[in-house]
Amino acid sequence: MTRTLISGGLVVTASEELEADVLVEGGKVAALALRGSDPARSWAASGARTIDATGHYVVPGGVDGHTHMEMPFGGTRSADTFETGTRAAAWGGTTTIVDFAIQRPGESVRAGVDAWMAKADGACAVDYAFHAILSDVNESSLKEMDALVDEGITSFKLFMAYPGVFYSDDGQILRAMQRGAANGALTMMHAENGIAIDVLVEQALAEGRTDPRYHGEVRKALLESEATHRAIQLARVAGAPLYVVHVSATEAVAELARARDLGLNVFGETCPQYLFLSTDNLAEPGFEGAKYVCSTPLRPRDHQEHLWRALRTNDLSVVSTDHCPFCFVGQKDLGVGDFSRIPNGMPGVEHRMDLLHQAVVEGHISRRRWIELACATPARMFGMYPKKGTVAPGADADLVVYDPGAEQTLSAATHHMNVDYSAYEGKRVTGRARTVLSRGRVIVDDGSYLGSAGDGSYVPRSTCQYLV
Amino acid sequence: MTRTLISGGLVVTASEELEADVLVEGGKVAALALRGSDPARSWAASGARTIDATGHYVVPGGVDGHTHMEMPFGGTRSADTFETGTRAAAWGGTTTIVDFAIQRPGESVRAGVDAWMAKADGACAVDYAFHAILSDVNESSLKEMDALVDEGITSFKLFMAYPGVFYSDDGQILRAMQRGAANGALTMMHAENGIAIDVLVEQALAEGRTDPRYHGEVRKALLESEATHRAIQLARVAGAPLYVVHVSATEAVAELARARDLGLNVFGETCPQYLFLSTDNLAEPGFEGAKYVCSTPLRPRDHQEHLWRALRTNDLSVVSTDHCPFCFVGQKDLGVGDFSRIPNGMPGVEHRMDLLHQAVVEGHISRRRWIELACATPARMFGMYPKKGTVAPGADADLVVYDPGAEQTLSAATHHMNVDYSAYEGKRVTGRARTVLSRGRVIVDDGSYLGSAGDGSYVPRSTCQYLV
Amino acid sequence: MTRTLISGGLVVTASEELEADVLVEGGKVAALALRGSDPARSWAASGARTIDATGHYVVPGGVDGHTHMEMPFGGTRSADTFETGTRAAAWGGTTTIVDFAIQRPGESVRAGVDAWMAKADGACAVDYAFHAILSDVNESSLKEMDALVDEGITSFKLFMAYPGVFYSDDGQILRAMQRGAANGALTMMHAENGIAIDVLVEQALAEGRTDPRYHGEVRKALLESEATHRAIQLARVAGAPLYVVHVSATEAVAELARARDLGLNVFGETCPQYLFLSTDNLAEPGFEGAKYVCSTPLRPRDHQEHLWRALRTNDLSVVSTDHCPFCFVGQKDLGVGDFSRIPNGMPGVEHRMDLLHQAVVEGHISRRRWIELACATPARMFGMYPKKGTVAPGADADLVVYDPGAEQTLSAATHHMNVDYSAYEGKRVTGRARTVLSRGRVIVDDGSYLGSAGDGSYVPRSTCQYLV
Amino acid sequence: MTRTLISGGLVVTASEELEADVLVEGGKVAALALRGSDPARSWAASGARTIDATGHYVVPGGVDGHTHMEMPFGGTRSADTFETGTRAAAWGGTTTIVDFAIQRPGESVRAGVDAWMAKADGACAVDYAFHAILSDVNESSLKEMDALVDEGITSFKLFMAYPGVFYSDDGQILRAMQRGAANGALTMMHAENGIAIDVLVEQALAEGRTDPRYHGEVRKALLESEATHRAIQLARVAGAPLYVVHVSATEAVAELARARDLGLNVFGETCPQYLFLSTDNLAEPGFEGAKYVCSTPLRPRDHQEHLWRALRTNDLSVVSTDHCPFCFVGQKDLGVGDFSRIPNGMPGVEHRMDLLHQAVVEGHISRRRWIELACATPARMFGMYPKKGTVAPGADADLVVYDPGAEQTLSAATHHMNVDYSAYEGKRVTGRARTVLSRGRVIVDDGSYLGSAGDGSYVPRSTCQYLV
Repeated sequence: MTRTLISGGLVVTASEELEADVLVEGGKVAALALRGSDPARSWAASGARTIDATGHYVVPGGVDGHTHMEMPFGGTRSADTFETGTRAAAWGGTTTIVDFAIQRPGESVRAGVDAWMAKADGACAVDYAFHAILSDVNESSLKEMDALVDEGITSFKLFMAYPGVFYSDDGQILRAMQRGAANGALTMMHAENGIAIDVLVEQALAEGRTDPRYHGEVRKALLESEATHRAIQLARVAGAPLYVVHVSATEAVAELARARDLGLNVFGETCPQYLFLSTDNLAEPGFEGAKYVCSTPLRPRDHQEHLWRALRTNDLSVVSTDHCPFCFVGQKDLGVGDFSRIPNGMPGVEHRMDLLHQAVVEGHISRRRWIELACATPARMFGMYPKKGTVAPGADADLVVYDPGAEQTLSAATHHMNVDYSAYEGKRVTGRARTVLSRGRVIVDDGSYLGSAGDGSYVPRSTCQYLV
Repeated sequence: MTRTLISGGLVVTASEELEADVLVEGGKVAALALRGSDPARSWAASGARTIDATGHYVVPGGVDGHTHMEMPFGGTRSADTFETGTRAAAWGGTTTIVDFAIQRPGESVRAGVDAWMAKADGACAVDYAFHAILSDVNESSLKEMDALVDEGITSFKLFMAYPGVFYSDDGQILRAMQRGAANGALTMMHAENGIAIDVLVEQALAEGRTDPRYHGEVRKALLESEATHRAIQLARVAGAPLYVVHVSATEAVAELARARDLGLNVFGETCPQYLFLSTDNLAEPGFEGAKYVCSTPLRPRDHQEHLWRALRTNDLSVVSTDHCPFCFVGQKDLGVGDFSRIPNGMPGVEHRMDLLHQAVVEGHISRRRWIELACATPARMFGMYPKKGTVAPGADADLVVYDPGAEQTLSAATHHMNVDYSAYEGKRVTGRARTVLSRGRVIVDDGSYLGSAGDGSYVPRSTCQYLV
Repeated sequence: MTRTLISGGLVVTASEELEADVLVEGGKVAALALRGSDPARSWAASGARTIDATGHYVVPGGVDGHTHMEMPFGGTRSADTFETGTRAAAWGGTTTIVDFAIQRPGESVRAGVDAWMAKADGACAVDYAFHAILSDVNESSLKEMDALVDEGITSFKLFMAYPGVFYSDDGQILRAMQRGAANGALTMMHAENGIAIDVLVEQALAEGRTDPRYHGEVRKALLESEATHRAIQLARVAGAPLYVVHVSATEAVAELARARDLGLNVFGETCPQYLFLSTDNLAEPGFEGAKYVCSTPLRPRDHQEHLWRALRTNDLSVVSTDHCPFCFVGQKDLGVGDFSRIPNGMPGVEHRMDLLHQAVVEGHISRRRWIELACATPARMFGMYPKKGTVAPGADADLVVYDPGAEQTLSAATHHMNVDYSAYEGKRVTGRARTVLSRGRVIVDDGSYLGSAGDGSYVPRSTCQYLV
Repeated sequence: MTRTLISGGLVVTASEELEADVLVEGGKVAALALRGSDPARSWAASGARTIDATGHYVVPGGVDGHTHMEMPFGGTRSADTFETGTRAAAWGGTTTIVDFAIQRPGESVRAGVDAWMAKADGACAVDYAFHAILSDVNESSLKEMDALVDEGITSFKLFMAYPGVFYSDDGQILRAMQRGAANGALTMMHAENGIAIDVLVEQALAEGRTDPRYHGEVRKALLESEATHRAIQLARVAGAPLYVVHVSATEAVAELARARDLGLNVFGETCPQYLFLSTDNLAEPGFEGAKYVCSTPLRPRDHQEHLWRALRTNDLSVVSTDHCPFCFVGQKDLGVGDFSRIPNGMPGVEHRMDLLHQAVVEGHISRRRWIELACATPARMFGMYPKKGTVAPGADADLVVYDPGAEQTLSAATHHMNVDYSAYEGKRVTGRARTVLSRGRVIVDDGSYLGSAGDGSYVPRSTCQYLV
């Protein structure tokens, strides 16, 4: 069994900061020892391969709970394959993704799962798991949920937006939640009142308001908070837990806070784009704003401080990417003259760990909270802890030796995602993954990619670990 | 250097549950290794003393952030000395206490600290630290704060109750908080409007309402929540952190929740008596209610569910004991015929870990939350983490091998506190500390006390570790 | 021109209590004079017909803003015709009703209005006006709104319940509200999440829970408050005013209070059945509970105190009846074995003024608030003030000489509504309308009905008078 | 008995807008008649003195519930005597003031009342009443309250600010409120945490921050809202009603709203200076800011919109002036170099009606709300309704014929208050009292003052008329 010793670093987890050396045996963390202790010295003397982490952090690999690789949308598909997308993730220090397998209306959930399993199989650079998107809640698909939960697909996403595509009505939502209350599944919700939004879209287009920035204007914050509130109440009626994805509006955060003050099993996720970008980007001249079209949309800049605050108060507890890249040329431009045809989504899987470390540098969050938001909480939320999300005996040796002082400039010219633009073009950040291990194997080191497609394995998940 | 191996247990910390063996070297945790891993096997083979924890939890020793040993009050003093009180703590799996050194009006803070240091020196079974109580905030005592913070006394308690004894007016509170904002000290607050309460006390006594239960009636929940709100606003004006002790009322919790939703550095503590006892006890026949007289007072039973909820939502984040025992005969009876003369306080230092484990058994909190509330958070709150409060390489080897299935009945006949009654007489709980280590030394094992007075050392503290 | 003098009474309006005599000329209040003043004496001496109100109140005739006469529902129709229903209203001191003209899906709004106008024409004992129910919001019906507003139908009711019957989706609601924002129309909302409720109905029936009380269980309070919140947010997006009908749940009141604290033009109505009856009635043995089936449903008794409070805080500002009677025999019994087939609705138009006076007697509200809730506010809300709703020079002489000390027992044996049961059978109340004038004509006096069908006239309305 | 007919105007009260003529007999309103009705025509033909109000409003005379004439403060006294102050009030359409009789520490309340009665006796242009200020709450003064309530002094003001001068501690406040709960008295509260403020004052002066604007900085909004919250909780404990004077901060309004949502008898007053002026004025160059020094202080401009909103939601229900003028030369300049010595107070009694009418013109409030805030509600709040505050048969004929289109420029050069500056110098407003009647006598007409000192009578008051 291979042994690797990571020595000299500061081990940072969601709960600890330790001057400890980490011993990896055969893909797992075998032990942690205080630097200079007998065990640490004996390991160093044992001839194990040693990775010197002096001056670096040793952190768990990132867990990105929300990606969309090769996802069909509006007649095209997201530009990253499982191969390119997970490789970019690895470059950025993320060693587990949870992608979404989509049920098509009229088909079974399993058909969607099978299709996504096939796409990912043999392609991934890092470990992966799946949520399922329910696009057609009915007696049959409700029954499928039970078996899927047993097989490790323990979370199901519903949409209150996109009528005619992914949309579920409140009755379907209630039924799915009731099933979740029974089988332990976590309901994930895209919370926007799509029925009302589509009225505003139609009116905007009819009035010639067709530029990308109108995407942000019609998808109103009040229609996000309304749907958030509604999803919470339906979850209460069902007695089920709820996880609201990509929360972007102050008003929606307020609804989460109200629910959480009541002690409900309600959780919120936001994404780096809502923390670092704003409607100013959507309003960039020409068609540039299309690069920033995603749903929920970017919000005016003053929402950011409320999101940061909620990340501190834990009213938001996860930062995922909602990585769903479309090239500016050939994809985003489908929406020239009609913002509603711009494929919704942005690239991001590569930059999440660094952008959140930048937030540490800027004082928004603590170092431990960085790891909690990006690794530990998503792992627990989606039933993979402590296999994923921490550095502890028995955990998978998904580890990142992180250089907190490295400076880099984000750019399409240098990123590894398969997309022709960066949403953060030219942004300078401090901090970078130097060495990345996936189950004990070094897959990125000092600017070189050492892994290969298929390194990553499928991870069946238990149910949400936050419910008492 | 002595080596001890604790093997076979489930290591439970605030963040992890691990099947891991723990290696102790010279008073500290040196390493943790996955059960069955190479390191674990090599340690077992190395001849280290081994404690078999099979079927048990291995948890950090409890940190009780709020005790009053040998405290003068109303012409008497609390019945436990540092020797008897810390020994009882050890029996109950608590390995660190933070007691309160009292400044007397007209004297220096340091005089109080010196006096309490002298009382504790050479007497304690487990490690101990001190908060200081400011009874006379003035230019001189404000200046003393800076030096005390540097020396490891980093939290200062003020009273909005007890006019003429410990009471500080709002101007004194504001000044002390301003100093805390500058030097990092945490302000601890007894939040009850004592000025208004004293009016109600006088009226009750004048009307012949003198029984113990009137203690609970005059100290109204609204006067706790009022003071809580006031303390929060003064802390906002000062820009200082605030820790509210012994929160007992639903309405006070609501004020904490409001503040915490704003992202303020406001923290709340409750105690087992508020979770398990109620005004029903205060109303026990005869003078029995005196056993339950403490301030803030016990509340009607329906407050309990709100406290449990707040422990889950983290609006309350610490459970301490406010251990301050007075014997029923000879002390409590000073207040026969006048509830206001009943010494305020209850015994509890021995039972906190077990009562909170009982809450795990009953489903109020999770296993990890038990450790968080009782060990990790108080350690962080009072600047002792990760030396205290966790099981991790480098931490003090304050460890408890806890038998989760042991049944016991709480009783004055069997407890080790120096007081002639139990507030929980006859209560059956499941779970008990089997083996207790203090900095690597076994001080309690299987019903035997193996330590001696003076084992415990003084712990200087850093400032609160919760402030970003 | 006929002159009538009402002398000796205490004139009570929403704002005043005056010892004044009231001079009526030709259908309108011409003047009020202080009792004993020169004008009062000269009127008494002038030979005008004099109604002696000594020991009585002189109050404006009641305005019931929510009735359903001859309404088709579930294959039957409500049992009161405009003739019988308005006559019962007159008996109870209500001199204006606002009924609902229903647009059928696929037909125009105007067709509904015309049909209802025809039903009422020549039939009514008291004045009447109409809201319109929009069952089919589309481009055409939206355009019709403008003309109807000009003609005096200035409020439009939408349903978030009853999918397939009256239900509008959120897009339709938004469009109608936008139109209201432009043309001044008030949106009235039946706020229950009917889509979710129908799931629960189906599940209850499938499980054999078919008794009337399950009507109350499936129509959950959280699904009323959810819809209330949603309606408020849609109104905010549209910039339109909102009036929520028949509010019954504490949780829904809380949403109204939140909105009103923001200064929004959001108003709430409740009905006597929610104030005086409860789920205890729905659970009466046998099929008796069917008498109390209405939607929103009756709630557990503890909701009542919150409704009373909201009537004092003005978070609820109108009490209407939602009068919609179905006979127990032959109508309610359509739902034997299936609560979902019980026609929804209860009789009440005759008792509202008396039940609210009873609330004065019991101390829930003041005398002036009684008149405000029952007369002045609905008149202003629906654009009929000061023609209706007050006693002032120029107002219609719709006046009630009310005997505050009369005792009566409510009963189907004595009431004048065309329905075979009373929801308040046997209830004793203090207070009764002795003499009722409609535009100056005495139509009820001392137990005799003196009017005739067709006395009542149609009242075109201006827009809501509460919007600054 | 003299008869006066006011014809042709629009009578505006808190609840009605009527095209009615008003007949005055011997100091009281005898009758109102619809314009053109028989009674109206007969009055016109009867030879009564007629005041033509065509094109004007006929409104009740203003009721200013908060003035300080000839008040000793900081070694000087407010510049208006009862003679000059009430004359200025009359000019501005205010026909009743309620001034504050001050108990001095160590003296009886009655001594204060007697002194103020003597000052006002024979001096006033309009009617007047008194609140009492309790500066020394003790057994004796508590007993005095009962008799004073019986004599028509039914409200008692306490100060949480000004330690050593007017300050009462929370125990004194609680006792006074308890007495109010028993005898019906309304507690009025100056809600600022004066103990904390004095610390900040001392610190500011010590640091050389001595200019007038620091008055606004040290009297922090959070210290107003804290005291507001505290006063509310003490009132809850006592079961007593509470009226908070001169509310200026958004945060304080929020506390009132919270209390009022609970249905508590808690009321709030603001003043024109908080609605129209701001800290910008306090920061005017040189010592100019001293003109705007009052307590609570002016707030940053963004508070204004919250005050306007609260006036609409009724979380604030009265606008008084807190008229307390000090001349810039010779009085305000006592505080050159030390803002804490600037006499606290501003002139305003003359302009309240006009400034609030300006708010009607600008769309902040409706015409009826103008009268409600300025006339009806203060009259009811302080037990003088319907004698004062409305136009109705039996009411005192305190009437104002108001020209809604008149334009005027506020200025010390033209105002009638005895003070050498105007806080609104140069401000243009639309609307002006043309003719003012006090109990039927014309005292101001078309720019002439026709009354004389001593016209005004003392008005004994009943208790607050808002408590159910």
